[in-house]
Amino acid sequence: MSVSRKQLSEKSSIGVFDSGVGGLTVVREIMRQIPNESIIYFGDTARVPYGNKSKETVTRFSRQIVRFLCSHDVKAIVVACNTASACALDELEQEFDIPLIGVVKPGTKAAVEATRNGRIGVIGTEATIQSGIYSRYIRELRKDAAVYGKACPLFVPLVEEGLWQDPVTDEIARRYLAELIDCGIDTLILGCTHYPLIRSTVGRMMGEDVALVNPAYETALELKRLLEEEGLLNHEARTLGSIGHQFYVSDGAEKFKQFANAIIKYGILSAKVVNIEEY
Amino acid sequence: MSVSRKQLSEKSSIGVFDSGVGGLTVVREIMRQIPNESIIYFGDTARVPYGNKSKETVTRFSRQIVRFLCSHDVKAIVVACNTASACALDELEQEFDIPLIGVVKPGTKAAVEATRNGRIGVIGTEATIQSGIYSRYIRELRKDAAVYGKACPLFVPLVEEGLWQDPVTDEIARRYLAELIDCGIDTLILGCTHYPLIRSTVGRMMGEDVALVNPAYETALELKRLLEEEGLLNHEARTLGSIGHQFYVSDGAEKFKQFANAIIKYGILSAKVVNIEEY
Repeated sequence: MSVSRKQLSEKSSIGVFDSGVGGLTVVREIMRQIPNESIIYFGDTARVPYGNKSKETVTRFSRQIVRFLCSHDVKAIVVACNTASACALDELEQEFDIPLIGVVKPGTKAAVEATRNGRIGVIGTEATIQSGIYSRYIRELRKDAAVYGKACPLFVPLVEEGLWQDPVTDEIARRYLAELIDCGIDTLILGCTHYPLIRSTVGRMMGEDVALVNPAYETALELKRLLEEEGLLNHEARTLGSIGHQFYVSDGAEKFKQFANAIIKYGILSAKVVNIEEY
Repeated sequence: MSVSRKQLSEKSSIGVFDSGVGGLTVVREIMRQIPNESIIYFGDTARVPYGNKSKETVTRFSRQIVRFLCSHDVKAIVVACNTASACALDELEQEFDIPLIGVVKPGTKAAVEATRNGRIGVIGTEATIQSGIYSRYIRELRKDAAVYGKACPLFVPLVEEGLWQDPVTDEIARRYLAELIDCGIDTLILGCTHYPLIRSTVGRMMGEDVALVNPAYETALELKRLLEEEGLLNHEARTLGSIGHQFYVSDGAEKFKQFANAIIKYGILSAKVVNIEEY
């Protein structure tokens, strides 16, 4: 299945997907930077998390979601999940004829701009860190950069349990981040969409001399640039109520709604459940 | 799809499934109690965990797995996952004509036998506790029992990260178990197949006057009883090497193998990946 670019219109929506709720931190940035755009969000809450699963499985799941989003009127798709961006984006770009934007490339760009000493840390899921993709993209931009990756598998469940400010999260952060501190990094990429929610904990551990990079900001900027280039930016002035964002999940619509409303200010009134395995 | 009981033979295998690796604690008990039986295990590692997902989704996933196991030569299926036993077993029993054994009923039986003061605690996933099924089954056996359920969502990721003996696991256990201690229970059901792996932590928190019930033991006993009743017990004397257990997962065969070999002594040489969504 593929969507021809000829069909794309500025009135169309932006598709955004994630393994669950984390991608809403990216949605939040998109809403801030290009508030006229309608968003169709899909969170794969039935199969979350992706971060400890294989490249093949993450790619298969992501492909189904892109097919689902393409069955709606979308003009671009944001892969708002670091794991899916790291594992699946290259393959999806070859398969689908629609602009796809991941969070990895924008994140590396921001990190290379921020670093002074060329020592950059990346925290993410097991799959993201193992892919080595952050390191590869960073070295494309700055050959002499030293990149240190560290998988932090307990951060996602801790965030999802709401322990955003908690001594247990402090202790786990201390363990995960110790070796990055020892490496003398001056920039740290928050390479998982859940991590901005524990930004203050991570920042406290790393100290104020280390710049924290949230790829969500740069991703929204990149999306805006791309839409401008392709003449697809929506210039229609719209009120919040008339935009009609849509939220879909593969499980637990009610729980999603509660979590989502804690992250974005939009006021999500409903989320629909989709059987994503059928796509 | 259904399998007629007429086809069942004592030479057939026992199907066992779980959302991931936790069900291997049940496999370990089956191997101990009825070592002549061949086991076909399926772990849904692509969609793990089940514990925070809805009844509908857990039932759909479980149905696919039972279909997969029925495509092999199995004479009974053990639902070695508390969440699937709590959410899906009733429906699966109506759909499939093969003996199905969950872990909930055997667990409640053991708890009712163990308690002296009739105050029983249950720890499990959100879905298991919300289902209220332990409480229902316990009261069928002992009307005046008081049952206290507590969801412990962080135990599974902590176990999977290998923090079986760790101050962080102690701290989380302290928080989860405090209210159960206050309720004056004398028996606690470990209502998730991951929990036997942190039995010593839970035992230390609860104190030695509280009996810990691991449903795996009673489930294996129940399976043995059922096979005897139906004349399906395998009486052939077999050596470990000739039994030929089979292990299937939906993702990450290599990682599964490592974890599995830490739980059971059998020495798993290979695990095969299956696309379970096709069943």
